[in-house]
Amino acid sequence: MTSLLNSVILNTIDSPLQLRQLERKQLVPLAQELRTFLINSVAKTGGHLSSNLGVVELTIALHYVFNTPDDRLVWDVGHQTYPHKILTGRREQMQSLRNPQGIAGFPRRSESEYDTFGTGHSSTSISAALGMAVAAQKAGLERRAVAIIGDGAMTAGMAFEALNNAGDMDANLLVILNDNDMSISNNVGALNNYLAKLLSSRFYGTVRKSGKKVLSAVPHVMEFAKRAEEHVKGMVTPGTLFEEFGFNYIGPIDGHDMDALIDTLSNIKQLKGPQFLHIVTQKGKGFEPAEDNPNKFHGVGKFDPFNGDALTSNTKKTYTQVFGEWLVDMAALDNRLIGITPAMCDGSGLNAFAEKYPDRYYDVGIAEQHSLTFAAGMACDGLKPVVAIYSTFLQRAYDQLIHDIALQNLPVLFAIDRAGLVGADGPTHAGSFDLSYLRCIPNIVIMAPSDENECRQMLYTGFQYNGVAAVRYPRGGGAGVVIQKKMQAIEIGTAEIKRHVASNTKQKVAILSFGSMLNACLKAGEKLDATVVNMRFVKPIDKIMLENLAIDHTLIITVEENSVMGGAGSAVLEALQAIQNPNKSPIRTLCLGLPDKFIEHGVHETMLAECGLDAEGIASTIAKLIT
Amino acid sequence: MTSLLNSVILNTIDSPLQLRQLERKQLVPLAQELRTFLINSVAKTGGHLSSNLGVVELTIALHYVFNTPDDRLVWDVGHQTYPHKILTGRREQMQSLRNPQGIAGFPRRSESEYDTFGTGHSSTSISAALGMAVAAQKAGLERRAVAIIGDGAMTAGMAFEALNNAGDMDANLLVILNDNDMSISNNVGALNNYLAKLLSSRFYGTVRKSGKKVLSAVPHVMEFAKRAEEHVKGMVTPGTLFEEFGFNYIGPIDGHDMDALIDTLSNIKQLKGPQFLHIVTQKGKGFEPAEDNPNKFHGVGKFDPFNGDALTSNTKKTYTQVFGEWLVDMAALDNRLIGITPAMCDGSGLNAFAEKYPDRYYDVGIAEQHSLTFAAGMACDGLKPVVAIYSTFLQRAYDQLIHDIALQNLPVLFAIDRAGLVGADGPTHAGSFDLSYLRCIPNIVIMAPSDENECRQMLYTGFQYNGVAAVRYPRGGGAGVVIQKKMQAIEIGTAEIKRHVASNTKQKVAILSFGSMLNACLKAGEKLDATVVNMRFVKPIDKIMLENLAIDHTLIITVEENSVMGGAGSAVLEALQAIQNPNKSPIRTLCLGLPDKFIEHGVHETMLAECGLDAEGIASTIAKLIT
Repeated sequence: MTSLLNSVILNTIDSPLQLRQLERKQLVPLAQELRTFLINSVAKTGGHLSSNLGVVELTIALHYVFNTPDDRLVWDVGHQTYPHKILTGRREQMQSLRNPQGIAGFPRRSESEYDTFGTGHSSTSISAALGMAVAAQKAGLERRAVAIIGDGAMTAGMAFEALNNAGDMDANLLVILNDNDMSISNNVGALNNYLAKLLSSRFYGTVRKSGKKVLSAVPHVMEFAKRAEEHVKGMVTPGTLFEEFGFNYIGPIDGHDMDALIDTLSNIKQLKGPQFLHIVTQKGKGFEPAEDNPNKFHGVGKFDPFNGDALTSNTKKTYTQVFGEWLVDMAALDNRLIGITPAMCDGSGLNAFAEKYPDRYYDVGIAEQHSLTFAAGMACDGLKPVVAIYSTFLQRAYDQLIHDIALQNLPVLFAIDRAGLVGADGPTHAGSFDLSYLRCIPNIVIMAPSDENECRQMLYTGFQYNGVAAVRYPRGGGAGVVIQKKMQAIEIGTAEIKRHVASNTKQKVAILSFGSMLNACLKAGEKLDATVVNMRFVKPIDKIMLENLAIDHTLIITVEENSVMGGAGSAVLEALQAIQNPNKSPIRTLCLGLPDKFIEHGVHETMLAECGLDAEGIASTIAKLIT
Repeated sequence: MTSLLNSVILNTIDSPLQLRQLERKQLVPLAQELRTFLINSVAKTGGHLSSNLGVVELTIALHYVFNTPDDRLVWDVGHQTYPHKILTGRREQMQSLRNPQGIAGFPRRSESEYDTFGTGHSSTSISAALGMAVAAQKAGLERRAVAIIGDGAMTAGMAFEALNNAGDMDANLLVILNDNDMSISNNVGALNNYLAKLLSSRFYGTVRKSGKKVLSAVPHVMEFAKRAEEHVKGMVTPGTLFEEFGFNYIGPIDGHDMDALIDTLSNIKQLKGPQFLHIVTQKGKGFEPAEDNPNKFHGVGKFDPFNGDALTSNTKKTYTQVFGEWLVDMAALDNRLIGITPAMCDGSGLNAFAEKYPDRYYDVGIAEQHSLTFAAGMACDGLKPVVAIYSTFLQRAYDQLIHDIALQNLPVLFAIDRAGLVGADGPTHAGSFDLSYLRCIPNIVIMAPSDENECRQMLYTGFQYNGVAAVRYPRGGGAGVVIQKKMQAIEIGTAEIKRHVASNTKQKVAILSFGSMLNACLKAGEKLDATVVNMRFVKPIDKIMLENLAIDHTLIITVEENSVMGGAGSAVLEALQAIQNPNKSPIRTLCLGLPDKFIEHGVHETMLAECGLDAEGIASTIAKLIT
């Protein structure tokens, strides 16, 4: 429907410099073209759609008003930067978005000077932009720093830490709250837009400032005047909270009204100190299927740009779904079970649980830290919380895991999704470190399933275990094995031999597989006639198994989808060195895993192969060692 | 001066049950006795003083009004729980406070049923108490959950995450803000106390609730009424911020006025839903030396209870001081240097820098996450931030380190204090994991100095390095070596041989020391005639050194003050396995370090010895292997 529109204006914009030369009346048609281009582009590559459609006007207005890249734009989360990429010289490259060697789905400093700060995880933008604002101040530059943050990201603690700190400084920082949650019709109208313009005007800013100067001599009057001002504004605008932090609050304004945006931003640009602009936008704006179902079009595969129908479908059950089904089944068996997610209901597979057990379901918002200590409090008083979280986001709650849960040895189960490489989302979302950062924590049991059924049984095992337990599983689906409805606990710390080397083989190799690597290991084991062990537990590691393997093998290979630094292989090395036998040389061991670097986005399987973690890679590495 | 008072009433209180049987008029004299007992007790044991003196009345009032331990008290940070410990059956045990086998300086679930949640790190209390409130709700119990949190702790993101989440629920949670920052004389008077009583009364609560019910039928009126109520209260109380989160704000009241406390708490106890009480107290209250200098008496050694004079003094230079001096010197040489601390100016040794370079000094409050990403933003635009942080608190900013700093390879230097065991503060404050959780992060350089001078040179090395660097050093002093004013960079990733095994020794042992362990290793090396290497870098590890050592030694021992799980020794194991020589057996290796458990508080040296990490322990472990 929209794809018939040509990119007449858009095609002339290879940098914001050209954008800024347009006449103002051209900006609304440009927005239309940009929106069409975006829909057609994401339809071909897949990616994030709803959030990008919501910021088309804002992105144009920002680059039109501000002197980018000298003025710094920091996009929170960063999956809404497609319009920004299109307008900053990467229009043609959009066809390679999120593809191997293509441009990233998030801002990357290495990709463009317009990407001033790499994002991916939420709620970092205010801190980063404040740092940039301070740097500008130190250099004596008038340069502006702008953080653009969504209402969801605003619930995370670090956004508040940054607001609280920034409000107390005199740096020239603009925070734009992109609010998708508020209904436009109810709260944003002509009056509000008018008011926002008024409040953001230079005149008002000057009065406010000089008023402060005069009144600061008589603190009590000053205080009263400030409160009075707050309360006058408070009665008509919802900004009291932000004013409390010391920001000058402006808004809310309609984030799809180009004129309102440009006028307001132009006015704000002249103001000094911490400014806060509240805009209201609609996710999926301008594409009916996305407007109707913004969640479905949050992140999508390829789709038909005319009706939004998906062009590819994945029928294999994902680990996420396995977890979701287990949670519902387990909840039926134990009414102490509580399901907790930090704003990842859909992504973590909690929908069915949330629907069936609304009273036992807690979506705490983007608040990873709180989610864990909240669970700890519950666990103290007899509930059995299950925290569903992505590996990469658990990094946000590392201290809470150590200090509030493990130190007190509380029974909390972690369902850690997206462990290992994640494909198109790239390094910001990869779960490459969890085995390393979890393994050093005392009292924790860490499991990694080799297939979907084992995932279910491990979740059950962890839930029954009276202490801290974690099950970490990869993004996407497994081998497609049959899942047994019946749940049965696995004995803690026991590995399982899947294949035994022939007794007449000269060089006896044992391949120790952790989690998702089992199929590749089995293939390599077949090829080379090696023992293959499904280790199942990263902690406690099966020391008896290791001792036995060391007796009748000549080489041990560990394979994991985690950084080789401090990961599961490292646990094997540590366990083997502790088995000190002065009369026998230690067994040769080699650890295979993710290399010590951040790995760019791509296709999951290809990425693993590039790391030597497919069957062929594993087999050829071993072959070199035994010839 | 105060120590002449006898504990006539206090001696009769062995549990809050007895406290609750007292007449109200006995509570003020009890507070006096408790305060005196506290001063005399801490004078003998050392510990936290100012904060405990500030909560004497509050602690009495809470146990008097609430039905503890059934009602849950969660003390944020927890170093202010001495009065709580004294009133809950641990009066006599106070003489063993923070001593080996004695009671802990923080609440511990294992110590008492009144310690409902272990704390140590700040800002966890609201989350935990909310979890408990939800658990009570699920169990259909009227039980209350109370979080007591200081104004400093309120700046941390997770406190906001919890407030934001709790305000949205109907759980019976009371948050008490213990505000030491506000001057009592200016803001808290008879009017405010009266108002607080009024607002907390049952009558007002009922009106408020039924008002909501009636008005909720007409949302617009409801909204207006709510705003109007907020603004009436907002004009006289500073609670707007907390009201915005959905709490019913009450206060501020004088936290040393026993009657006000008891009346208000008794009223609040009857209210449903999330309540917020703001009390104002004075740190060090009732002990003149502490009132005059609360920071000095925040944490103290033994002192004279009559005048507050310290009874012990430490003249050896601490690593903290070495860092502080280096920072001032480096700042003079490079004006891009910025010093950042999350509320640990004194503890991290930044005082002199803050005084000399106020424009380059940023105390961001208790906001570890923000402190790192703020530094990242600065580093993007040409500044060179140095983040001074304790090992245990860096856990709070783990994601920011990975996602915002290391992934973008930004030049930020971390001065990591209190790495390893910390003595009397115990497991909540131990820095036992940093080598493990840092080592898996790509792009980071990790150094551990063996003495004070090396610390200075490593800080210089890290600052000069154009990327992420960390220097981790222990609490307290080193060997007392001379510190060279001149700064000289150490070549990245190079170890240094300190002692060579004699060529005619049969069993050739190499002891690889990391950081603070060097002196013990050298002594063990002398005793056993072993090679001793000061490894200096944990990452990148000196592979050439390892390769050479493996050639002419028969046993390698690694020694570190970090968890042996995934720590520096593990790095050595990984490096050695990667040097695969099919024609040669791998070298035997043993890793010594902190065991895989949380270690209770005690005396630092003794604790190390108990872990086998003193010279004797190291020597005897090795001796067993080579005989």
